[in-house]
Amino acid sequence: MRSRLRDTPEGLDIAMFGVPLDLGSSFRSGARHGPAQIREMSRLIREVNYSTKIAPFDLCDIADIGDAPVNSLDLDASLSAIQQFVQTVLSADARPLAIGGDHTISLPILRSMAADGALAMIQVDAHSDTQDLMLGKKYASGTPFRRAVEEGLIDPRKTVQVGIRGTLFSADELDWALAQGITIIDMDEFEALGAADAARKARRVVAGSDCYMTFDIDALDPGVAPGAGGLEPGGISVRQAQVFLRELRGIPIVGADVVEVSPPLDPSGGTALAAANLMFEILCLLAESHSNASD
Amino acid sequence: MRSRLRDTPEGLDIAMFGVPLDLGSSFRSGARHGPAQIREMSRLIREVNYSTKIAPFDLCDIADIGDAPVNSLDLDASLSAIQQFVQTVLSADARPLAIGGDHTISLPILRSMAADGALAMIQVDAHSDTQDLMLGKKYASGTPFRRAVEEGLIDPRKTVQVGIRGTLFSADELDWALAQGITIIDMDEFEALGAADAARKARRVVAGSDCYMTFDIDALDPGVAPGAGGLEPGGISVRQAQVFLRELRGIPIVGADVVEVSPPLDPSGGTALAAANLMFEILCLLAESHSNASD
Amino acid sequence: MRSRLRDTPEGLDIAMFGVPLDLGSSFRSGARHGPAQIREMSRLIREVNYSTKIAPFDLCDIADIGDAPVNSLDLDASLSAIQQFVQTVLSADARPLAIGGDHTISLPILRSMAADGALAMIQVDAHSDTQDLMLGKKYASGTPFRRAVEEGLIDPRKTVQVGIRGTLFSADELDWALAQGITIIDMDEFEALGAADAARKARRVVAGSDCYMTFDIDALDPGVAPGAGGLEPGGISVRQAQVFLRELRGIPIVGADVVEVSPPLDPSGGTALAAANLMFEILCLLAESHSNASD
Amino acid sequence: MRSRLRDTPEGLDIAMFGVPLDLGSSFRSGARHGPAQIREMSRLIREVNYSTKIAPFDLCDIADIGDAPVNSLDLDASLSAIQQFVQTVLSADARPLAIGGDHTISLPILRSMAADGALAMIQVDAHSDTQDLMLGKKYASGTPFRRAVEEGLIDPRKTVQVGIRGTLFSADELDWALAQGITIIDMDEFEALGAADAARKARRVVAGSDCYMTFDIDALDPGVAPGAGGLEPGGISVRQAQVFLRELRGIPIVGADVVEVSPPLDPSGGTALAAANLMFEILCLLAESHSNASD
Amino acid sequence: MRSRLRDTPEGLDIAMFGVPLDLGSSFRSGARHGPAQIREMSRLIREVNYSTKIAPFDLCDIADIGDAPVNSLDLDASLSAIQQFVQTVLSADARPLAIGGDHTISLPILRSMAADGALAMIQVDAHSDTQDLMLGKKYASGTPFRRAVEEGLIDPRKTVQVGIRGTLFSADELDWALAQGITIIDMDEFEALGAADAARKARRVVAGSDCYMTFDIDALDPGVAPGAGGLEPGGISVRQAQVFLRELRGIPIVGADVVEVSPPLDPSGGTALAAANLMFEILCLLAESHSNASD
Amino acid sequence: MRSRLRDTPEGLDIAMFGVPLDLGSSFRSGARHGPAQIREMSRLIREVNYSTKIAPFDLCDIADIGDAPVNSLDLDASLSAIQQFVQTVLSADARPLAIGGDHTISLPILRSMAADGALAMIQVDAHSDTQDLMLGKKYASGTPFRRAVEEGLIDPRKTVQVGIRGTLFSADELDWALAQGITIIDMDEFEALGAADAARKARRVVAGSDCYMTFDIDALDPGVAPGAGGLEPGGISVRQAQVFLRELRGIPIVGADVVEVSPPLDPSGGTALAAANLMFEILCLLAESHSNASD
Repeated sequence: MRSRLRDTPEGLDIAMFGVPLDLGSSFRSGARHGPAQIREMSRLIREVNYSTKIAPFDLCDIADIGDAPVNSLDLDASLSAIQQFVQTVLSADARPLAIGGDHTISLPILRSMAADGALAMIQVDAHSDTQDLMLGKKYASGTPFRRAVEEGLIDPRKTVQVGIRGTLFSADELDWALAQGITIIDMDEFEALGAADAARKARRVVAGSDCYMTFDIDALDPGVAPGAGGLEPGGISVRQAQVFLRELRGIPIVGADVVEVSPPLDPSGGTALAAANLMFEILCLLAESHSNASD
Repeated sequence: MRSRLRDTPEGLDIAMFGVPLDLGSSFRSGARHGPAQIREMSRLIREVNYSTKIAPFDLCDIADIGDAPVNSLDLDASLSAIQQFVQTVLSADARPLAIGGDHTISLPILRSMAADGALAMIQVDAHSDTQDLMLGKKYASGTPFRRAVEEGLIDPRKTVQVGIRGTLFSADELDWALAQGITIIDMDEFEALGAADAARKARRVVAGSDCYMTFDIDALDPGVAPGAGGLEPGGISVRQAQVFLRELRGIPIVGADVVEVSPPLDPSGGTALAAANLMFEILCLLAESHSNASD
Repeated sequence: MRSRLRDTPEGLDIAMFGVPLDLGSSFRSGARHGPAQIREMSRLIREVNYSTKIAPFDLCDIADIGDAPVNSLDLDASLSAIQQFVQTVLSADARPLAIGGDHTISLPILRSMAADGALAMIQVDAHSDTQDLMLGKKYASGTPFRRAVEEGLIDPRKTVQVGIRGTLFSADELDWALAQGITIIDMDEFEALGAADAARKARRVVAGSDCYMTFDIDALDPGVAPGAGGLEPGGISVRQAQVFLRELRGIPIVGADVVEVSPPLDPSGGTALAAANLMFEILCLLAESHSNASD
Repeated sequence: MRSRLRDTPEGLDIAMFGVPLDLGSSFRSGARHGPAQIREMSRLIREVNYSTKIAPFDLCDIADIGDAPVNSLDLDASLSAIQQFVQTVLSADARPLAIGGDHTISLPILRSMAADGALAMIQVDAHSDTQDLMLGKKYASGTPFRRAVEEGLIDPRKTVQVGIRGTLFSADELDWALAQGITIIDMDEFEALGAADAARKARRVVAGSDCYMTFDIDALDPGVAPGAGGLEPGGISVRQAQVFLRELRGIPIVGADVVEVSPPLDPSGGTALAAANLMFEILCLLAESHSNASD
Repeated sequence: MRSRLRDTPEGLDIAMFGVPLDLGSSFRSGARHGPAQIREMSRLIREVNYSTKIAPFDLCDIADIGDAPVNSLDLDASLSAIQQFVQTVLSADARPLAIGGDHTISLPILRSMAADGALAMIQVDAHSDTQDLMLGKKYASGTPFRRAVEEGLIDPRKTVQVGIRGTLFSADELDWALAQGITIIDMDEFEALGAADAARKARRVVAGSDCYMTFDIDALDPGVAPGAGGLEPGGISVRQAQVFLRELRGIPIVGADVVEVSPPLDPSGGTALAAANLMFEILCLLAESHSNASD
Repeated sequence: MRSRLRDTPEGLDIAMFGVPLDLGSSFRSGARHGPAQIREMSRLIREVNYSTKIAPFDLCDIADIGDAPVNSLDLDASLSAIQQFVQTVLSADARPLAIGGDHTISLPILRSMAADGALAMIQVDAHSDTQDLMLGKKYASGTPFRRAVEEGLIDPRKTVQVGIRGTLFSADELDWALAQGITIIDMDEFEALGAADAARKARRVVAGSDCYMTFDIDALDPGVAPGAGGLEPGGISVRQAQVFLRELRGIPIVGADVVEVSPPLDPSGGTALAAANLMFEILCLLAESHSNASD
C-alpha cells in the first residue's frame, strides 16, 4: 500500500505487519507467503476510498513495520513471538493490522490485545474455526476462536461470524459456538439480508465494546479468491464484502487481520489483490475509528 | 469425496463413477480428464451439507466404483460400453451418479435408465443440446437430448432446461425443442425469477415422474468455471446453483451426471472444485430421495 | 468472430480492427497483444444473440480489416496513424469498432469521428480517465477524455461514465469531470439502480445525439477479468454488462471500442473471452443502429 | 512466420498448412489447437537462419494456405479430406509443410505424396509409432508408420527414426520395425554419436531417394516441450535438434510435418515456440532443396 | 505407475507408498501434495525400460500401498508413524520405495531400515542436508543425514552425495560431512566426469554393503523441475539422471525414496513427471536387485 | 539477495539497483516488472558461492539502493534520469550492478561510466543489439551498442558478444558490428569451444581495460528462461552461464547489468530465479575485482 516502511511502531497510530506462518494449516498450506504477495498487489491501490472518501493516510500515522518474527519449523515458539511482537505495537499506542498467515495467528494477536478484558469480534469467514481439536491438536487454523473464548480473549455474546457455509464434519459442529452465545450470520442469512443489513445486524452484536475484526479470505467465493487455504464454493463477492465493511463505519475497531491468502495456490495474484483491497477498506475503518477516538 | 472405493456396485444405494470420454466434443476437448480432477478436488468436501444438514453417507450406502470402460478412439463402441456399465449399476439396484466426460455421455446412461419408460429430466446448461446434427454427426455433445427425445428416453413435456443463453447458430435453433414441449428457463428468466423460484418452476415441470438430473458445468459463468468445454459469458454463480439444487428436495431423482469439466483448460482446478461441490449437492438430493423411497 | 477478413473498409457497414498499442499504460502494460487474443477467443461466439435475437452479420456488411498501423516505440506517431486509419474507415462510410490497446486509443478515434461536431458518449469503466496529466504527460491511458472534452470531441453534458469505483489519488479527482457536466453512474449507484435502470439513465443522458461507446474491460470485476490494465475489485459482472448493453438498443451508436485487455496478465484468455462477448453485444447494437439508420 | 497468407497453393513452391485434428490421440489430446498457437509463436521468427544464412523466403515462393478441412468428430472422413487437400498442393507443384495435429496426420499426407513410389523418411520422435493396433484401432497416433510401410508409402530400408526412448508396452515392441529394416537411432545412440554425427548417419540411410521429414515434438525433452501429446523425460534439446537438422542440408526433402503440439497442455506457448523454430529450420531445408532441384 | 493398489505390504517384493509430509520445510513447502501428483503423472509410464529392457513388474511383486499415516500438524508424531509404517513393510519382507514429502522423511525410513547396522547410501541432491540445526531445530529438511550419521543409520564412509551445488550459508558448511568421510561428487565434478563415470565412482564408494538410495528432485535443474522445495540453478538434466541411475545396476539397493516434489509450485506437473520417470528407473534397480538376491 | 537495503550509495563498494523501464521493447514488453520479481526470487540465494567459495558480502560493502527514477511514459526523460542516477553511484565510489528493464538501459549506464574513456565490454546475449534503427527509432532495445560505439562509450575492439544466435532480419545484419572490430562468439562457436574456453577467449578480447558486463537473459534457452523479451530457442544453459562467468575471475569488472526479465511472461518466476542466480555470480566477480583493486 502507499504507506511508508518503518522499523518500529513508535509514533504510529496504525501499524501494519505480516505474519508469514502457516504451520496451523492441515491441508492446503502456503499462507506463509501471503504477506509478500499482498504487499506487491497493494501497489495498485491509491490513497482515497472511492465510496466513503476516507483518506486513511491523511487521518492517521500509518506504516508497514515488516514481518513479525516467526519460526517456520516451530508453531509454539511462533505463537509466543507473535504475541510479544504485537505487545510492542500496543506499547507504542499503535493499533495492529496484521496480514497472515493462516488463521491460527489471530490467537496470539488477541492474547496481546485482550489484556484489559475480552473484546467484541467480527469474523468474516467460511468456517467458524471453533473446533476443539484439529488432527488432535489444540492450536491450528480450525481452532483459534475456541481457544479465544476459553481464554476469555473475546466475549462470545459480542462475537459475530459472517459468511459461514462450509460443508461440516458433523451436523453438530457449530453447536458449541452457538451455545456460547456466538451469533452466526451464515451464507443463507447473509444473502437473505443483503450485505448492508448483515452489517447492521453485526453492529448490534458488537455494540458498546472495543472490537477486533478478522477476515478469512475464504469467505470470498473461490471464483474470485482461489488462493485461499480452504475453498468453499458459493461465497460472497468482493463487492458484497466492500458494502459490508463500509456499513461498519463508527464501530470502535481496535485491531484487525486478513488471513489465509496462499500465493502458491494463486500465482496470478487475484486472491492477494482482493485481500489488499479489503485490507484497505479495513484500514479506512481503523483510521476513522482511531481519528474519532482522538477527537 | 469422502466415499469408499469399490470394484462393483453390488450392495450400493448410489454408485458414483467416471466416464472419461470426450470424443463428442467438436472444439474444446479435454473432458476425458474430468473424473480424475473432480475426484482430486472433492477431497476438500466434508460430510454434511451446511444448509440442508443432509449427510448423504449416513443416509445411504455410497461408493465410487471407478471409471466406465471407454475406448478413447471409438465413440460408438464407447456409447455401448457406457450403456452396459450403467446396466450393471441398475441391476445392483444402485442409482448412478456419473462424472463426465462430454455431454454425449448422458445418452447411453439414459438408454439404460429408461428401460421402463421415459423419464422426466432437469438439465442445467448454457445450451439446449438438441441439435439434429453436429458436423454432420448424430452423436455428439450438441445432440444427446434430440436423440433422447426421439428414442423415447425422456418425456419432453416433463423436461426442463435451465440457464440456456449461448449465442445461437440460427434464430430458430431452439424451435424443435420448444415444439416438443420442452420447457426452457433461459438465463433472462432465471435471473428474473431468482434461483429458488426457478427451481419451483422446474419442480412443477417434472412433477409425478422419476427424474434424471444432468448438469453441464458450462451453465456456470466462465469466470468461476473457465475449464468448461463451451464457454458462455453471463452464466449462473455457484451460489445460485446451490440454491436451485437445494430447492429441488423431495423430487424423486433416480440418476444424475455432471459433465464437461475439462482439466487441461483449467489446471488450477477451480472448475473441478465447483463441479465437485455441485456433485455433492446432487448426491444429497439422490441420497434423500433414495432414503425417502426406502421408507 | 465469425466475420470475414478484409484488406480495406470499402463496401462495409461496420469495420472491426485492432489497435495494438499500450504506450499509454504507466504500470501494467501488455494491451498491445489484446487484439490477437480477443480474435482467438471470439471463435467461441456464434451468429445470433440469444436474448435479442439480433443477427448482426445478416443486418450489415461486417468484416475485420486487420490492425491499425502503430509504432510501438512512438506514442505520438501512433496517435496520428490511428486517427488517419479511422479516417479511411469513415471515408468508406463504415462505422468503426476498435479493439485496444490501452485507453489512450479512444482519443485519435474520436478525433476522426467528431469532424462534424461533438459526440455523445457512453463510457463503461472503473475510472473516469479525465486526469489532466499522468506522470506529467498529456497523452496517456488516464487522460483521454479530459483531452476529448477540451478538444470538443465529446459533449460532456451528453457523456455518461458507468461503473466508476477505483480508489482515488485525491478526494477531488472527479471534480473536473463533474464540473464539465459529465454524468457519473458510479458502482454504488449502478448496484442501487440495477443494470437495466442504469442503462435507461444512460439513454437519457445521450438522447438525441450520435453516440460513441467505449468499454474499458476493467469495469468488470477482476475475478472475471484479471487481465485488465487496471484492476479494481468490486466491479460489474459480465451478466450485468450484457443486460446494460442490451437495454441500450435504439440509441444511434456510430462507433465503439473495447480496450485494456492485456493477454500477458491473463494467458488463460478469460478476460479476452469476456471482451469478445461484450464486443459481440456492441456489434449487435451497432448493426441494429446502422440498419435502422438505413431504413 | 513472416509468410503471406494465401487461399490456394497455386504458384507456390512450398505450401504451409495446419491440420487441426487430434482424434488419433488416446490420452493427452489438444493437438487440434496446435496450428493456431504455432502460427502465433512464429511471429518471433525473423527472415534469415543465423547459422546457415539460408533465407527461405528469398529462395522460394512460400505461403500459409490455411488449414486442411477436417471433421473433428470423424477420423476416417478427416483422413480422406487431408489426403485430398495435400493432393491439391502437389497438383500445384508445391511441396507441403504441415503443422499438426496428432501424428496420425502423417499417414494421409504420405498417401498423397507416395503416388509415384515409396519415399525415404526421417522421423524425429520419442516413439516409433509402428504399433499394429492402438486400443484395437488401425488408425491412431501410435500406428501411422506401420500403415505407411504396409501400404508401400515409405521404404523401411530408407527410413530412420531418431530420438526413440519411451518406456515400452513390451520388450519386443520395436521388433517389427527392425525386422522391416527401419534404422533406429535411439536416444542412447544419439547422445553417443552427437547430433551432427547422428544426422550424418541418417543421411546415409535415406541417400538417393526423395525424403519425407516428420518431427514429433515429443522428441524434445519435456522440460522444454511440456505441451506434447506424449511426454518422455530425457529427450533432446532444441539446440541438438537444430544441429541435427542443419546437418541434413542437401538431402532432397520433398515434404514435411511437425506434429503433436498441444496448446492446452502448455498455454505459455514454449512448446509451440520450439515447434515454430524447428519448422523454420525445416523450411530452410525444404527451400534450399527446392532451389537446388530447380537449378 | 502401472502397479496395483494394495492395502497391505503382505506378499510384496517392493512396496511403494507416499509420505505426504512437509513440516520439515522452512521456506517453500507443498511437498505434502507430492505423492498425489506423482501418482497422477506416473500414468504416462509404460511397463518396460527402453534402455535396460528391465520389466520390473515381471521381475517382482510390486504394489502401491497408499500413504504412510502422518499428522500434518505434528512433525514428531509423524516421524514415529512413518518409522512404524516402514517397519510393517520390512516385516512383510518387502523393500520400500517412498514418495515424499520433504527430505526429513528419509530419517524415519532409515531408522527402520538400519535395524541390523548402518547402510551405504547414494544421495542425489543439490544440498548435503547435513546441517546440525535448521532454525534451531534438529529435525528438518536440511538435517536428516547429520542425524542419520549420528544415529549410526548410514556409514559415512560408504555414503556418496551427488550433484551438490547450492550456494552456502558459510564456506565451511560441508566440512562436517567431509570430516565424517562422506564422499561428495559436486556438480563441477559430476560434469567433469560425466554421468556414467560419476555413477562408477559412486559404485565404488558403496561397494559391499546394502545400499539406500535417496533422490531429492532439486538435484535436477530448475528449468526442468521448478516444483522443487529448494531451487538451485545449474543442475543435472533428467537424461543425466537416467544415465547415472542405469549405471548403478547390480548394486544391492534395499530401499529408496524420491522427495521434495511440491505440486503447488508446479501445477503443470512437469516436476512430478520427471520424478515419476526417475522413480521408475529406481524401481527397475530395486526390482533387478531383489531378483538377483532371490536367485 | 541477502543484502541490506539502503537509501543512498554513500559508503558502498557495490550498489545494486533496479531500472523498471521497458519503453524500448518493440514487441514483448513487461521488463519494467523485472526488478521486483528478481528481488523476490533472490531470497533463495545464500551467502557463499559453492564453486568459487567467494563470499561477496564479506569482501565488500554491498546494498540494494532501490530503483532508479524512470518515467514509464517517457523514454528520453528516463534515459537522462538513469544516467544521472548512475552518476550518483559513481560519485560515491561505488560500482553499479543494475537489474533491468529492457536492454536500452545499458546505454545511459555506459554514458555515466565511460566519462574517462571507452570501456571494454562482455555481452552475453542472443542478439547483437547493434541495429541502427528499430521501428525508425535510434533508442530502443535493439540498438544500444550501436549507440555506445558511436558515442565512444565502449571500444569495439575490446568488446565481445557471446551466445548470439537469433534469426536475422537480413543476412548482413552483423556486418556493421564485425566491421567495427567487435568479436562475436556465436552459439555455434560457444558450443564448439565449451563454456570455459569461450570465457578464456572473451578474457583475451577485453584484456587490459576496465570492463563492463551486460547479460541479456535471452541468452539462456527459452526452456529455462521463457520470461525473456526476446526468445531464441537453442540457447545456453544456466550451468554453461555459470561456468562461463566463473572463468572470468580476475578481470577488472567495474559495472554490470542483467536485463530483459519480463515477469508477466513467466509468472512462475523461473526466469527471474535464473537471473538472480547469475546476478549473484556477477556480484562475486564484481566483489572480488573490487577487493583486488583495493589491495
